[in-house]
Amino acid sequence: VNRAAVLSIGTELTRGELVNSNAAWLSSELTDLGYEVTSVVTVDDDEPRIIAALERLGAEHAVIISTGGLGPTTDDLTTLSVAHLLGVPLFRDPSSLERIRARFVSVGLEVSASNEKQADFPQGARVLPNDWGTAPGFKVQIGGADAYFLPGVPREMRPIFEAHIAPELRGREGGGGHQIHLQTYGLRESVVNDKLAGIEAEHSVIIGYRAHFPETEVKVLARAETSELAAQRARGAADEVIARLGREAIYAEGKRSYAEAIGELLSQHSKTVALAESCTGGLLAKLLTDVPGSSRYFLGSAVTYANSAKTALVGVSEQLLSAHGAVSEPVASAMALGARAAFGSDFGLAITGIAGPDGGSAEKPVGLVHYALAHSGGVVQEHKVFPGDRGQVRLRAAYAALSLVRRALLAPG
Amino acid sequence: VNRAAVLSIGTELTRGELVNSNAAWLSSELTDLGYEVTSVVTVDDDEPRIIAALERLGAEHAVIISTGGLGPTTDDLTTLSVAHLLGVPLFRDPSSLERIRARFVSVGLEVSASNEKQADFPQGARVLPNDWGTAPGFKVQIGGADAYFLPGVPREMRPIFEAHIAPELRGREGGGGHQIHLQTYGLRESVVNDKLAGIEAEHSVIIGYRAHFPETEVKVLARAETSELAAQRARGAADEVIARLGREAIYAEGKRSYAEAIGELLSQHSKTVALAESCTGGLLAKLLTDVPGSSRYFLGSAVTYANSAKTALVGVSEQLLSAHGAVSEPVASAMALGARAAFGSDFGLAITGIAGPDGGSAEKPVGLVHYALAHSGGVVQEHKVFPGDRGQVRLRAAYAALSLVRRALLAPG
Repeated sequence: VNRAAVLSIGTELTRGELVNSNAAWLSSELTDLGYEVTSVVTVDDDEPRIIAALERLGAEHAVIISTGGLGPTTDDLTTLSVAHLLGVPLFRDPSSLERIRARFVSVGLEVSASNEKQADFPQGARVLPNDWGTAPGFKVQIGGADAYFLPGVPREMRPIFEAHIAPELRGREGGGGHQIHLQTYGLRESVVNDKLAGIEAEHSVIIGYRAHFPETEVKVLARAETSELAAQRARGAADEVIARLGREAIYAEGKRSYAEAIGELLSQHSKTVALAESCTGGLLAKLLTDVPGSSRYFLGSAVTYANSAKTALVGVSEQLLSAHGAVSEPVASAMALGARAAFGSDFGLAITGIAGPDGGSAEKPVGLVHYALAHSGGVVQEHKVFPGDRGQVRLRAAYAALSLVRRALLAPG
Repeated sequence: VNRAAVLSIGTELTRGELVNSNAAWLSSELTDLGYEVTSVVTVDDDEPRIIAALERLGAEHAVIISTGGLGPTTDDLTTLSVAHLLGVPLFRDPSSLERIRARFVSVGLEVSASNEKQADFPQGARVLPNDWGTAPGFKVQIGGADAYFLPGVPREMRPIFEAHIAPELRGREGGGGHQIHLQTYGLRESVVNDKLAGIEAEHSVIIGYRAHFPETEVKVLARAETSELAAQRARGAADEVIARLGREAIYAEGKRSYAEAIGELLSQHSKTVALAESCTGGLLAKLLTDVPGSSRYFLGSAVTYANSAKTALVGVSEQLLSAHGAVSEPVASAMALGARAAFGSDFGLAITGIAGPDGGSAEKPVGLVHYALAHSGGVVQEHKVFPGDRGQVRLRAAYAALSLVRRALLAPG
C-alpha cells in the first residue's frame, strides 16, 4: 500500500481558530483511493517549519497533499517555502495571470500586485488550474513524494483535488477501482464494526466509515484488474454488508442524508408531510428543508414550543394538556392529527419531549420523547428515553420521528 | 514564548472518518494560555509511528498534549507505546482500578479484563483522574516536554484538561493572566483583523479569533505580574476593540451565541417572540431553542413552507400572495403580523426568501430575503441579497432577522 501524508499550513489552524475539516476530507479521499494516510500534520505560517515538515514527509511518503498558504497576503508563505526547499526561483505563469485578471475584471475590481503574486510558482512546478477562485494549485517532487499544493478554502480545494489530483492518483495504481457508499442510521459504530468483521478479507475489499452523528456511512472499496471486476467485487461485499446489518438499518445507497432519503421516498409515493414540533423546536423542519427541492413534499411545521401554541396552531385541547402533560402519548397523537389537519398534508408528524438539561422528573426523565405519525389510516405512536446532551436528544428524536415515516412508506400494502 | 504541540492518535482520524475537533479545541486553549502551538500532528494507531512522533515533538516543545488511544481495545496502543519509548514497565493504579470498577457497577455491568487495562500506566507517570468516563489520563516527561495523555472522547478530554492541565500550565508561566471574549456578528474576519491592527503592541495583549460562521469571537488575552494587573490590561484593550469595531457589531461579552444573546435581551425586557419562517424552514426556531430555557421568551414558529400554509397558519391572504409573490415586502409584513397574532407574542418575526440553488429570477435572484418584525408599535421591514450557498443564505437570513429584534430592544425609548 502506498503511504500518503496530509499537510495543513496556517497559523489560524495552529491557534485553533478554525477546525481543520480539510484534513479529514483529504484523508478520507486518499483512503478511498487506496492510500494509507500515516501522517496528518499542521504547521503555522513559518517558513523553517514548513520546510522541515515537507522534508520529513517527502522522505517517508509517496504522496503529500498540502493545503493553505497560497493566498495573496504576506502571511502566505507556502509557494516561497517550496521554492527555497527545492533551491529554485519563482516563475510567473502567464495563463494563471490571465485567469486571475479575468476573475477580477468580471466582478469589476482591479487586480493588485499581491493578487498577481498568486500566479507565481516554483520553477519546474506543474500548475493545477483553479476554476473556483484565484489561487491555483501546483505539483512538484519532494524527496520520494509527489507533492501537491492546494488553496485552503474548501470550496476551491475540493474541486481542484477532484479534477486534477484524484484521477492522477487513481491512474498510478493501475487497474480499476469501485466504491459503494451505504448509509446507516440507528446502529452504534462499534456494533457496525463488529458485525462486519471478516468481510474485508473474504471479499478483498477495504471497508471504511465516516461518522456524521447519528448517521454512519459505510464505504466499500474494491480494486481489481479492470473497473468491471472491481465493481463486481464491491457489489458482492456491499450485499454482504446489507445482509449482515439488515435492510432496516441501511437507509440508502449513495451519498445522502437521512432527511434526503425520506424526502425521496415521499416524492416517489407522491405524499406530503407536515410537522408539529415541541422539544425539537424546528430542528426537524430545518433538516428536511436543508434539502433543495424539499417544497415538493414538505408543507411546513408548527413549532409549538409553548402549550398555548399547541392549542392555537394544532388544536390540542387544554383539557388534554392538563390531564396528561405536554410530554405524553395523547398530546403527541393530537399534535400529529392537528398538523395533518392544519397543513392539509398526507402525513402529520409530531414530537414532544424533554430535551434537557432541566425539566425532567422521576416519571418523565430528561430524554423522554413521544413522537407520533398521523395518516389516512390512523395514528402510530412511539416513545423513547434518548441518551446524550440537549443537542443529541433533539437530533435523536428528530431521526426517530422520521423513521416512523420511513416505516409507513416501506410497509407492505 | 513556550512552544506546545498537539498530538492526536487514531486510525479513524488518519482515515478521515472523523473531523479532528479536539486538535482545534486544544490549540485554542493552549494559545489562550500563552503558548505558541507550532505542531499539530495526527498519527494512526501504530506503535513505531506513535513513538517517532513523540520523540520528535519532545525534542522541540515544552508541552505536548496527546489525545486518543487510551480505550480498552487492542487497537489502543498509546499507553504501551509511551512505556516502550521511556523503557519502563506498566503499573496498575489501584485507585484508578477502583474508580473504573465503581463506574461499571453503577450501571449494572461487569468489568472486563480489557477495561481493567485502562488502569495501567507507564511506571513513573502521574495519573490524571477521569470523573467523566473510564479512561484516566496521565503525565510523563518526554525529552524536554511535559507530555500529557488524554482520552479522545471530547466530553471526557475537555474536563480533564480544564481540571488537571490548564491550572498547571497557567501556574508554570508565573504571574497572572486574564482573558476577555467579545462576540461579533456582521463583520468579515479580515475586516476585524484590519480594524484591530496595532492593539496587540499598544496594550501588550494577544488578540485571537475563533470563527463560527457567521459569528466571530475576538479573544483578548493579557498576562502581567498579578491577576489584577492582567485584568486591567485586558479591560483596556477590550474597550479599544469595542471602540474600533463599534457597539453595533459586538453583540456580547463572554461565551454565547447570537441567539443566546437575543434571548437574554428578550428576558431582560420580559418580551416574548414568535416566528413565521419560509425559506429558513425552521432554522431560526432551531437556533433559538438550542438554548436551554428558551421557553421563557420563545413561544414557537409557524414554518410555512408552502403558500397554503402561509394562509392557513398566519393568515396571509391569497390575494396578497398572488399580487406580490411569496418573497415580497407585503408578504413578509403580513407573516410577521400573523405570527404575532397566532401565538399571542410581543414580537412577530418573519422571513421569506429564495435560499437556492434554484428558484431565482432576474428581479428576484437567489439570496433575496425579506424579513420583518411586528411589535405593538407597527412593523419594521428589511430585505437583502445574501451571498453564499443555500446553507449560508439561510444562516445569514436568520441572523439578519434576529438583528431586527436586537435593534428594537436596544433602541432608545
